[in-house]
Amino acid sequence: MITLYYAHGTCALASHLALEYAGADYQTVRIDFAKKEQRSPGYLRVNPKGRVPALVTEQGVLTETPALLQFISQSYPGARLSPLDNPFLMARVNEFNSYLCSTVHIAHAHRMRGYRWVDENDAQAIAAMQKKVPQSVGECFQLIERELLKGPWVLGEAFSVCDMYLFTLAQWMEADGLEPSRYPKVADHRRRMTADPVVAKVLAAQAG
Amino acid sequence: MITLYYAHGTCALASHLALEYAGADYQTVRIDFAKKEQRSPGYLRVNPKGRVPALVTEQGVLTETPALLQFISQSYPGARLSPLDNPFLMARVNEFNSYLCSTVHIAHAHRMRGYRWVDENDAQAIAAMQKKVPQSVGECFQLIERELLKGPWVLGEAFSVCDMYLFTLAQWMEADGLEPSRYPKVADHRRRMTADPVVAKVLAAQAG
Repeated sequence: MITLYYAHGTCALASHLALEYAGADYQTVRIDFAKKEQRSPGYLRVNPKGRVPALVTEQGVLTETPALLQFISQSYPGARLSPLDNPFLMARVNEFNSYLCSTVHIAHAHRMRGYRWVDENDAQAIAAMQKKVPQSVGECFQLIERELLKGPWVLGEAFSVCDMYLFTLAQWMEADGLEPSRYPKVADHRRRMTADPVVAKVLAAQAG
Repeated sequence: MITLYYAHGTCALASHLALEYAGADYQTVRIDFAKKEQRSPGYLRVNPKGRVPALVTEQGVLTETPALLQFISQSYPGARLSPLDNPFLMARVNEFNSYLCSTVHIAHAHRMRGYRWVDENDAQAIAAMQKKVPQSVGECFQLIERELLKGPWVLGEAFSVCDMYLFTLAQWMEADGLEPSRYPKVADHRRRMTADPVVAKVLAAQAG
């Protein structure tokens, strides 16, 4: 059976949603960031990066959300979570997911994880990073609103893993200092995702 | 014909290498970052992100290095640039490429592009970011050295797009304040890549 290591409120939600939409036979293990469990020797044996998500498969442990989303899509082709038969559209999927992981998530991470890029005791630099988050994350969501979210779903008519990943990062908009109503297409996308029983089930499981 | 927009000394080198290894019929357009051409109206029509690489295909424009590397691999399957028939190994490819784009490249970017995450006039915060680059990029290359680079190539015996991307980012080690000899597997990988006539041809084309 597949096992997903996740922490509540993190990008691991995207992979959790994908497993549920896939109808996969999976279990989850919750990692408590407040207790720094991601740095425990036991977890570092699962994922030496000390991050979530990590997906334990029969073939080995996989990490990095874009890789997990494509792997889950390919492992459950009947669920049609990605346009697997079309290399150009798969490039669109990977382009979108790469943008979320390397630009949107990174801009967001400067609010809570600034110590990755400056001395953790440099309160002034940490604060300088936090101050720019509404602008840097806001510019990302402007690009998503204007260019990337075709509507009704990210790729257009076809629902995909991109929607699960976008929904995951859009959960952080308010805490990042953004006003969701300024991004009406993203806000509408979020409402439709939230209303889906599959999403509600996964959110309840993570909150429980 | 495929057109790659690139700038010298950027991660676009990975996609340029992939096109050359693929034997693709392609042309390149050089963008001059010193002249801020990536922010020109003409280029923003190609890529609204104002970044490189951008790959103009018959089906549309693609961006983000991991997406380009998979697309080039799938477009030229005879070149065997990725383990296309094995979803788990493809997940390894995407895991590695995602790590490079969202962690290694980002750690590096805090040396030259700190203005993305703090006010561009905050010289103190910009300097605080630059100061941590040798440590943050160094930790990435330690993980690559210890866990990710199987040897002789990233995936083991099979040469792949991961090697082109690793080579690209490893070019920046010295400028990022790293001592390459502390990462002997990466240094050896770099020597073998540099000695390859395909790599030499692409480096010469970008330098010309």
